[in-house]
Amino acid sequence: MTPTPINLQHKLSLFTDQWSPKIIAQIDDYQFKLAKLQGDFVWHSHPETDEAFIVLAGQMRIDFRDGDVELHVGEMLVVPKGVEHKPCADSECHVMILVHEGTVNTGDAPENNLTADAGAWTD
Amino acid sequence: MTPTPINLQHKLSLFTDQWSPKIIAQIDDYQFKLAKLQGDFVWHSHPETDEAFIVLAGQMRIDFRDGDVELHVGEMLVVPKGVEHKPCADSECHVMILVHEGTVNTGDAPENNLTADAGAWTD
Repeated sequence: MTPTPINLQHKLSLFTDQWSPKIIAQIDDYQFKLAKLQGDFVWHSHPETDEAFIVLAGQMRIDFRDGDVELHVGEMLVVPKGVEHKPCADSECHVMILVHEGTVNTGDAPENNLTADAGAWTD
Repeated sequence: MTPTPINLQHKLSLFTDQWSPKIIAQIDDYQFKLAKLQGDFVWHSHPETDEAFIVLAGQMRIDFRDGDVELHVGEMLVVPKGVEHKPCADSECHVMILVHEGTVNTGDAPENNLTADAGAWTD
């Protein structure tokens, strides 16, 4: 059976909730997720996995304890495991995220109202 | 030290060789690579790693033994480990690839004129 192509815009059209990454594909033990971000997230880190952000639409900022990084459409960033960061977006930003399977979006922060289901697929 | 953003278009502007994936980022044991594809590649598989293709510009086709898949800009596909496939592109296509570090582009095919340096970074 041939694998099925995944259309990123179509997958983005299937949900509207923000800060709630949806899994769209899995490669070995890692998962590609799509998320819509707006406002400020919480400070957190992922002790067990690096995390890649790829901006598909809009722009975002990732705050680190020693500086901020602006990310525009067509740009990506890898947050090393264990490094505290806080994603933010003034307007809604669409991103693709790559992390180890089972990674909770709020990482090591206490569970809060932004903590999402780490196993949520788009379909 | 804050991580550095990676601009995909800028990275693509740094090389012209086709079928020669360049590493642009690493997340744990996996590497994001950019490649420019045109023409027919060779049949091969990667016994040890799934492989993700994300089309950034143009379109490509991935032939499988039991069917072909067309991939357009904004679409992605995961080729499961061990599955024979042959990428093709009528016109130059720009893709981002994610594979386990050290993965050779021609996989289990005998080394040939399309076999590239698995550790080549863009900069």
